[in-house]
Amino acid sequence: MLEVKVISALWFIGILAEAMTGALAAGKKQMDLFGVVIIGCVTAIGGGTLRDMLLGNYPIIWIENVHYLLAIAAASLLTVMIAPLMRYLSRLFLAIDAIGLAVFSIVGAQKTLMLGFSAEISIVMGVVTGVFGGVIRDILCNQVPLVFKKELYALVSLATAALYVVMKLNGGIEWVSLSIAVIFGFCFRMLAIRYRWSIPQFDYQNKSGSCH
Amino acid sequence: MLEVKVISALWFIGILAEAMTGALAAGKKQMDLFGVVIIGCVTAIGGGTLRDMLLGNYPIIWIENVHYLLAIAAASLLTVMIAPLMRYLSRLFLAIDAIGLAVFSIVGAQKTLMLGFSAEISIVMGVVTGVFGGVIRDILCNQVPLVFKKELYALVSLATAALYVVMKLNGGIEWVSLSIAVIFGFCFRMLAIRYRWSIPQFDYQNKSGSCH
Amino acid sequence: MLEVKVISALWFIGILAEAMTGALAAGKKQMDLFGVVIIGCVTAIGGGTLRDMLLGNYPIIWIENVHYLLAIAAASLLTVMIAPLMRYLSRLFLAIDAIGLAVFSIVGAQKTLMLGFSAEISIVMGVVTGVFGGVIRDILCNQVPLVFKKELYALVSLATAALYVVMKLNGGIEWVSLSIAVIFGFCFRMLAIRYRWSIPQFDYQNKSGSCH
Repeated sequence: MLEVKVISALWFIGILAEAMTGALAAGKKQMDLFGVVIIGCVTAIGGGTLRDMLLGNYPIIWIENVHYLLAIAAASLLTVMIAPLMRYLSRLFLAIDAIGLAVFSIVGAQKTLMLGFSAEISIVMGVVTGVFGGVIRDILCNQVPLVFKKELYALVSLATAALYVVMKLNGGIEWVSLSIAVIFGFCFRMLAIRYRWSIPQFDYQNKSGSCH
Repeated sequence: MLEVKVISALWFIGILAEAMTGALAAGKKQMDLFGVVIIGCVTAIGGGTLRDMLLGNYPIIWIENVHYLLAIAAASLLTVMIAPLMRYLSRLFLAIDAIGLAVFSIVGAQKTLMLGFSAEISIVMGVVTGVFGGVIRDILCNQVPLVFKKELYALVSLATAALYVVMKLNGGIEWVSLSIAVIFGFCFRMLAIRYRWSIPQFDYQNKSGSCH
Repeated sequence: MLEVKVISALWFIGILAEAMTGALAAGKKQMDLFGVVIIGCVTAIGGGTLRDMLLGNYPIIWIENVHYLLAIAAASLLTVMIAPLMRYLSRLFLAIDAIGLAVFSIVGAQKTLMLGFSAEISIVMGVVTGVFGGVIRDILCNQVPLVFKKELYALVSLATAALYVVMKLNGGIEWVSLSIAVIFGFCFRMLAIRYRWSIPQFDYQNKSGSCH
């Protein structure tokens, strides 16, 4: 049961990291503290909620267990308090966010597999869980979603979820598959940031398209 | 049964007020009349619809009873016709909108309680019902949602829903609880507008955060 | 069964056309190729997905049959490759998009009718299916949804869905009703573009409203 506790702990860390990215985005739009809490909550739980609504998988976890919402609200408010320190913590924060991305993608795929859906849909739902919290955050903050533009965010999510699903379907032991996928996703994301990896952008302006 | 009729009437007034805010927002973006009607509908029913989708509570009320949609569409078009008068009616309109906010928050919490969910989730769903119609309206009109920035909108919704839930759970008679909560929410909102009450904003720019 | 194959083929063409509009919109925001694929998918399946979530109609079709997603992803990437040709293909593309709009509206209404909902809700769901893929695309690309502003897009959807539903409820043979509605919707849309038909816009600025 140790691996369950480890993945739960990492998942919870991921939720709090997502809440913090939401709170900071809200701060950039000068929202009030209530708006900060709502954006923090939506960012942290939005991806998993959308997944469950797409799958018709009710009740949604935070509706059954309201303590998640309270922890997320607290993390959002804590972010406001430590915001002046964020410039010193930005590397730590990126690392926590990378853990969150990997764990969300894996847990999203894992839950979908366990509900009996196909491998492909499980991978898609891993991406929905990993990425769409940030997408909803950016929509609420009136920005083009960052994850569609930068730093392989969505690709890391896809690769991590796919790696986990492939290992599981080939008889991988749960905690080994989880560990490998988390480490892979974390390293992939950190390397993508460090070396500014990117995939080609599609630039289509004034009816003349190019891909560079 | 009088209190049922009163709350139904207030809820219907609230829906029409929400439709009008949607129509005016659509007008600011120079939408065509069909866009005005769609934004009016989404604003009026978006919060309750999102609540029911989150709870898995099907069928959604306006799908069972399509007359709500027709009334909302009519209110949206009426708004276009009386728009030149809106400057003279703005106080009346704010008052109607405040009634709508209070009633939506209470009805959202009430329905969630009746479905057997916890007090906390009922309060959260009161806020979802009261606030997210306007959030979806602002997203469709490509604006940062106002409710996260101004005039205690979301806080009024939370406080009103919480007051109703606490009274209900402590054995409050339905119509007394409803009346007190409606009056409380209405007065709280009107006072917040009148005296420009606000809660602190979180302003996080250029990596230097402050709360003021 | 020929008419089933024809409508399926047209529906599939519509999905691919929608994916292409999504890919082009993503290119205007300089998204990376992964973002292009996601926007393409969301545009193509967003309307039908929203309809099924509103109706509580699970499982959603692309979750049961993942091949749709793969075809849409391929169409999105193909769009990137042929983007330089799009200026020469723009008329063809508008025609394909018009077919897609008509077929989506009809299929959305048809599925809702077959689930036992009322005629009015079936028409509303036709509009949701026909129009909201593009609405979600524009939200993700941070634009005011075009369909609320231009070229009768939403009105064509409503009229086409309504025509189909009225014919069906009056005993119309399926393939005759389908054919008439598809041809009507296609022609209506092409004529609206050709002759710049529009319905009045509601322009509400600085508290002075007018409709022109």
